[in-house]
Amino acid sequence: MNFVLPNAPRPTADIPHYRPLGNECALFETAWIRQLPLLLKGPTGCGKTRFVSHMAARLGLPLSTVSCHDDLAAADLTGRYLLKGGDTVWVDGPLTRAVREGGVCYLDEIVEARKDVAVVLHPLTDDRRMLPLERTGEMLEAPSGFMLVVSYNPGYQNLLKSLKPSTRQRFVAIEFDFLPKAQEIAVVEAESGLAECQVARLVDLAVRLRALKGHDLEEGVSTRLLVYCACLIDAGMPAKEAVRAAMIEPLTDEPDVRAALLEVADSLIA
Amino acid sequence: MNFVLPNAPRPTADIPHYRPLGNECALFETAWIRQLPLLLKGPTGCGKTRFVSHMAARLGLPLSTVSCHDDLAAADLTGRYLLKGGDTVWVDGPLTRAVREGGVCYLDEIVEARKDVAVVLHPLTDDRRMLPLERTGEMLEAPSGFMLVVSYNPGYQNLLKSLKPSTRQRFVAIEFDFLPKAQEIAVVEAESGLAECQVARLVDLAVRLRALKGHDLEEGVSTRLLVYCACLIDAGMPAKEAVRAAMIEPLTDEPDVRAALLEVADSLIA
Amino acid sequence: MNFVLPNAPRPTADIPHYRPLGNECALFETAWIRQLPLLLKGPTGCGKTRFVSHMAARLGLPLSTVSCHDDLAAADLTGRYLLKGGDTVWVDGPLTRAVREGGVCYLDEIVEARKDVAVVLHPLTDDRRMLPLERTGEMLEAPSGFMLVVSYNPGYQNLLKSLKPSTRQRFVAIEFDFLPKAQEIAVVEAESGLAECQVARLVDLAVRLRALKGHDLEEGVSTRLLVYCACLIDAGMPAKEAVRAAMIEPLTDEPDVRAALLEVADSLIA
Amino acid sequence: MNFVLPNAPRPTADIPHYRPLGNECALFETAWIRQLPLLLKGPTGCGKTRFVSHMAARLGLPLSTVSCHDDLAAADLTGRYLLKGGDTVWVDGPLTRAVREGGVCYLDEIVEARKDVAVVLHPLTDDRRMLPLERTGEMLEAPSGFMLVVSYNPGYQNLLKSLKPSTRQRFVAIEFDFLPKAQEIAVVEAESGLAECQVARLVDLAVRLRALKGHDLEEGVSTRLLVYCACLIDAGMPAKEAVRAAMIEPLTDEPDVRAALLEVADSLIA
Amino acid sequence: MNFVLPNAPRPTADIPHYRPLGNECALFETAWIRQLPLLLKGPTGCGKTRFVSHMAARLGLPLSTVSCHDDLAAADLTGRYLLKGGDTVWVDGPLTRAVREGGVCYLDEIVEARKDVAVVLHPLTDDRRMLPLERTGEMLEAPSGFMLVVSYNPGYQNLLKSLKPSTRQRFVAIEFDFLPKAQEIAVVEAESGLAECQVARLVDLAVRLRALKGHDLEEGVSTRLLVYCACLIDAGMPAKEAVRAAMIEPLTDEPDVRAALLEVADSLIA
Amino acid sequence: MNFVLPNAPRPTADIPHYRPLGNECALFETAWIRQLPLLLKGPTGCGKTRFVSHMAARLGLPLSTVSCHDDLAAADLTGRYLLKGGDTVWVDGPLTRAVREGGVCYLDEIVEARKDVAVVLHPLTDDRRMLPLERTGEMLEAPSGFMLVVSYNPGYQNLLKSLKPSTRQRFVAIEFDFLPKAQEIAVVEAESGLAECQVARLVDLAVRLRALKGHDLEEGVSTRLLVYCACLIDAGMPAKEAVRAAMIEPLTDEPDVRAALLEVADSLIA
Repeated sequence: MNFVLPNAPRPTADIPHYRPLGNECALFETAWIRQLPLLLKGPTGCGKTRFVSHMAARLGLPLSTVSCHDDLAAADLTGRYLLKGGDTVWVDGPLTRAVREGGVCYLDEIVEARKDVAVVLHPLTDDRRMLPLERTGEMLEAPSGFMLVVSYNPGYQNLLKSLKPSTRQRFVAIEFDFLPKAQEIAVVEAESGLAECQVARLVDLAVRLRALKGHDLEEGVSTRLLVYCACLIDAGMPAKEAVRAAMIEPLTDEPDVRAALLEVADSLIA
Repeated sequence: MNFVLPNAPRPTADIPHYRPLGNECALFETAWIRQLPLLLKGPTGCGKTRFVSHMAARLGLPLSTVSCHDDLAAADLTGRYLLKGGDTVWVDGPLTRAVREGGVCYLDEIVEARKDVAVVLHPLTDDRRMLPLERTGEMLEAPSGFMLVVSYNPGYQNLLKSLKPSTRQRFVAIEFDFLPKAQEIAVVEAESGLAECQVARLVDLAVRLRALKGHDLEEGVSTRLLVYCACLIDAGMPAKEAVRAAMIEPLTDEPDVRAALLEVADSLIA
Repeated sequence: MNFVLPNAPRPTADIPHYRPLGNECALFETAWIRQLPLLLKGPTGCGKTRFVSHMAARLGLPLSTVSCHDDLAAADLTGRYLLKGGDTVWVDGPLTRAVREGGVCYLDEIVEARKDVAVVLHPLTDDRRMLPLERTGEMLEAPSGFMLVVSYNPGYQNLLKSLKPSTRQRFVAIEFDFLPKAQEIAVVEAESGLAECQVARLVDLAVRLRALKGHDLEEGVSTRLLVYCACLIDAGMPAKEAVRAAMIEPLTDEPDVRAALLEVADSLIA
Repeated sequence: MNFVLPNAPRPTADIPHYRPLGNECALFETAWIRQLPLLLKGPTGCGKTRFVSHMAARLGLPLSTVSCHDDLAAADLTGRYLLKGGDTVWVDGPLTRAVREGGVCYLDEIVEARKDVAVVLHPLTDDRRMLPLERTGEMLEAPSGFMLVVSYNPGYQNLLKSLKPSTRQRFVAIEFDFLPKAQEIAVVEAESGLAECQVARLVDLAVRLRALKGHDLEEGVSTRLLVYCACLIDAGMPAKEAVRAAMIEPLTDEPDVRAALLEVADSLIA
Repeated sequence: MNFVLPNAPRPTADIPHYRPLGNECALFETAWIRQLPLLLKGPTGCGKTRFVSHMAARLGLPLSTVSCHDDLAAADLTGRYLLKGGDTVWVDGPLTRAVREGGVCYLDEIVEARKDVAVVLHPLTDDRRMLPLERTGEMLEAPSGFMLVVSYNPGYQNLLKSLKPSTRQRFVAIEFDFLPKAQEIAVVEAESGLAECQVARLVDLAVRLRALKGHDLEEGVSTRLLVYCACLIDAGMPAKEAVRAAMIEPLTDEPDVRAALLEVADSLIA
Repeated sequence: MNFVLPNAPRPTADIPHYRPLGNECALFETAWIRQLPLLLKGPTGCGKTRFVSHMAARLGLPLSTVSCHDDLAAADLTGRYLLKGGDTVWVDGPLTRAVREGGVCYLDEIVEARKDVAVVLHPLTDDRRMLPLERTGEMLEAPSGFMLVVSYNPGYQNLLKSLKPSTRQRFVAIEFDFLPKAQEIAVVEAESGLAECQVARLVDLAVRLRALKGHDLEEGVSTRLLVYCACLIDAGMPAKEAVRAAMIEPLTDEPDVRAALLEVADSLIA
């Protein structure tokens, strides 16, 4: 097999900031070179979407992102017939456009989509790399510059919403988790403008709150909420009020759980 | 990051009346300045909608309100293709209009909406602040003057109707509750025109009835019903009849519960 | 607040006959003056619809009635786009027409309607009194001459079909029940033309049958069935046959229950 | 109230044959004169449809019959907008046509229809006698020559499929059952051409089989199957084969039940 | 009643081969003469469809077959409005065509169809023999040369999928089962070209495998699979491989059951 | 019966590579010659799709593949009416095209499709070999060069998703499983370019992991994942990282199971 690297990597200022934790950048690049589809797994707000933006920019590839949901059907990805001037005209969906033009097509939260979506991906993720458009009778062959990336949060999977083995086994997979403490402090500082010493205390609190997951909380505080909280403090809000609004109220509606979280927060935040 | 406050606050006569209870006005304003989306939680008729109207007017921002419901789908917010002169023409939905033109877009009772709505909000509520219109292929970037506010009543949440953590963790959140007694008296007096001494007895009754919530009542008397009751009395109805019509019959259909509520009312209202 | 009574009450011959039982007429009129929405609760055939017709005529207001059902959606009330000459043209629904032109809009059996209906009513039933037409982007303000009245039968409510507190608490409410004996005799006599002495025996029987509700019967005999029965007798049918056809067969299909009801009837009707 | 009998009864040869069992003909005629809607209850194949055809012809009224089913919606009865030459044109449904032109509209197996059908009938079955066409904004008043008749089989009713009291209590009702033996023999003889003595044995067998209902059989043999069986014998089939094909195989698929029924048949049919 | 036999039976070479087992041919012909609808009951692949083809050809009648399924609705049988040149044009479904033009209309696996199909058949299967087309307002009368035949497999019926008594009791019914051994050998030999002695062993095996139905197998081997197996052997495949591919793998996916079946096969097939 | 072999087999370079394991090639060819439909059963990624591509090319037949899914309906296979210039124009689906033009039509994962698909296949898979197009009124006869092949994974079948016996018994069936070790090594080496000795260790690992199926894993590692893993190593990734990304993360989200699999991998891969 011969592979062509279409664009030399361009680590310029236009590339969204991303600090690699492990081998994820090398793995993405190798998967892209060998034309293998990629699956990203991990909790809410841990940086999966940011990682894809970073890698697409770094490889000089156009990026098309689709947020999947309960009602997203195959036709939303492949295309539909629309009425124009009395005729039905075919209009490509985002997946079809990406297959025609190359680049990364990123399907976020793939398990949320309707079942027909996963199966539409099958011929695109085996050695055929074909996208059949049954409605138009076309059979598109993906160019070497096309890459499919999907993601989901394993914590939400259930009997109704999960990837079938026949779909999962078509992807190389990477597991994501929250950032290590030092890196998370750096990210929150950079995004919010708040001083490092203040951010450090917020990250300490986040680590404490994440340890409660499974007991009282459905999911731990995301890095995104940490950034929100730091933004509020940076804009002049008292730290306690910011913590409550950005790190506690978004996590729970249960009075008992909230009280427990507030107690943890009070012990750490002056 | 640099922020611009587009309009200086204008506390003029056009701004809907709202008496802050805590830091909610400062929090709203800070969230707006730092471009953070906001989540309001609280019971029926406690003033969430009024609060949003007040803040939007105070900040000089246009306000677009959407009451969410079981059948509200993403397309109702983003837009649809409609037939015009034989062609299909795209018509923006209220969320798309707000993203294009700036201002506050308020989605009331967000948990009632169909699941695809929550996920459509995702790219709009992370650092991208983008609204992808999959049907038209557009990718709108929210201007700095756009703010998303959503609300829901935690008392109604259940397994089928709740916000996923991946959605909740995209918002700074404020918890609302009923007004303290003195403030509620002032509000009811202002809205109904009834004399303070008469209103005070109605508020006393409301506090008593709210204490029954969870036992016999699904939810306590709202401030809105107190205003209705005061309006009826102000228009000349006997207080007992007004209380029954506006504060008891709307709460329950159970004969036993109604009898108990009437007994409480009789002991307080002459 | 200033209120204008647009038409002086006109108790002329055109007004549908209605005998008030309590303060319901005063309550309706006060609610109309103070622009409060009204909720009527009560069993089948007790006169709720007649009461609304009476009050609308008495206040000189146009009346628009919508019978709600399982498939009645918000768009059936607000309006739809229809194809005309190749274009899509907006056509107002009955609620939108009533908001534009004023008058009483009466939604009968509101709990039967789809969930989105109740929520569409929210902005119309708080201090905004607005009807947002999301599809057209219009925001209609209800004129002072518009009044919303809804009704339902508490006996039918269940977990799937009930008014949420957030909807109920937007209405002043009146509870209806069957007429007292003397009044019911007068109504049946007037409607059927049958002599009072004969009607009296039918009403006696109805009272007896209503007492069986909950044990063997889902609901008691309505005044409407009494009128039917009196009509059949007035047209020459034997009383026993008329009672069976109009007061017993419509109530039950159970042979045992029917036999018990017939026995009660035989003891009262010669 | 004044009533006009539009056509004198015409007992001519064109009137479908029907032998009254009780007061059902008088009751139908009185209901028609007094403009009361009629409900027919009874098992499969006992003659309800024939009775309506007979009465409509006898009173000189046009008859419009609609077989209701799971997917029959209100719009199937009232009408729809259809595309004609690019425009949407309203086309009346059978109920609307009957209301416009007068005559009997017969809705067979009403409980099978979707819930919105029953509620559409409400304004047509109280003193208003109106058919509101919400989609066109029309409000049709039923002429004195319009009569609504509905039927259902109480044996099929269940929790999901039943008439609500608020619908039932809008009708005068008649209970039907299988014909008495002598009358059933006469009907089967007339319909099949088979000799009375042979028919008599078939009716004897039917009575025996009907007694098994509830134990092994969901429903007893209908008069219609008796006619089928007599037709087969009259056409030359051996009686035993005709009984099996027309009176036993249509009743059950259970081998044990079939064997039991065949045993009963063998003891009666040579 | 007078009946006309439109075509004399034509037992020519064009008639699909069918060997009657009992009185089914006479019963079909009599039902056709007396205009009675027919119901065929029996397991998969026992020859019901072939029987109908045979009888239709023998009676010189056109045959229209519809395979029913979960989504087959009444409109698929009666017809639909389609857009042609901007107008909606009515297009007859297969049932309507058969009613207009005469001949046999065969609805295979009727219980699979949606509920509205069964009820559409009602007016066509009583003495009216009418097909009402509600959408067009037409009322078609079936000509004497029209016959309705339906079939289903009693082994599949369940609570959700079954014929209501009100539908079943409209048909004369025939029960089918697998062919007796000698006849089945003759059929398989004729269809496959394989020598009788080889076929006999396959039929012996089929009888053995059918005896396992209910224990390990959902249904016994059909005659069709026997023909497939004989075809494979006739084309040169080893008998054991043909038996596995055509008589065992299609029956089960359970390793244990397959092993047991293979053991039975090995003991009978060299 | 006379059969014509339309194209002599062409084992040229254009034929996708496939190493037969048993008699599957002979069985496919015999089924094709005798015009019997074929059912392929087996786990994810074991080569069913590749086998069909191979046989179609070898027999010189066009191949049309349809990936079935939850929302694939009969009309997606047979065709639909589309609007063109204001008219509705019929457009053939892939099954109809294959029936008109001959060749292999392969329906992958048939149990995923909607129920109406299986039943549409019935007349095409018995001796009639007809495809009725109910919407157009056409009845297509399959040419001798048409062959239907379907597949499914027995491991996924459940009560809701399974082939009915009446459908299964219309196919000759072949059971597939993973390749024997030597063959799998050869395939992975050929597809990835990685040296045989390295591939051999990966296949050893796959055999070990497949033995865990049913205990901790829903399904074993597919040959496809082995190829992915070998590709990553061939592109320079460390073997351990490649194994984790391509052979472990795609199999499970459970931390415990992943740890166990990693331990197995560590013991085999340096």
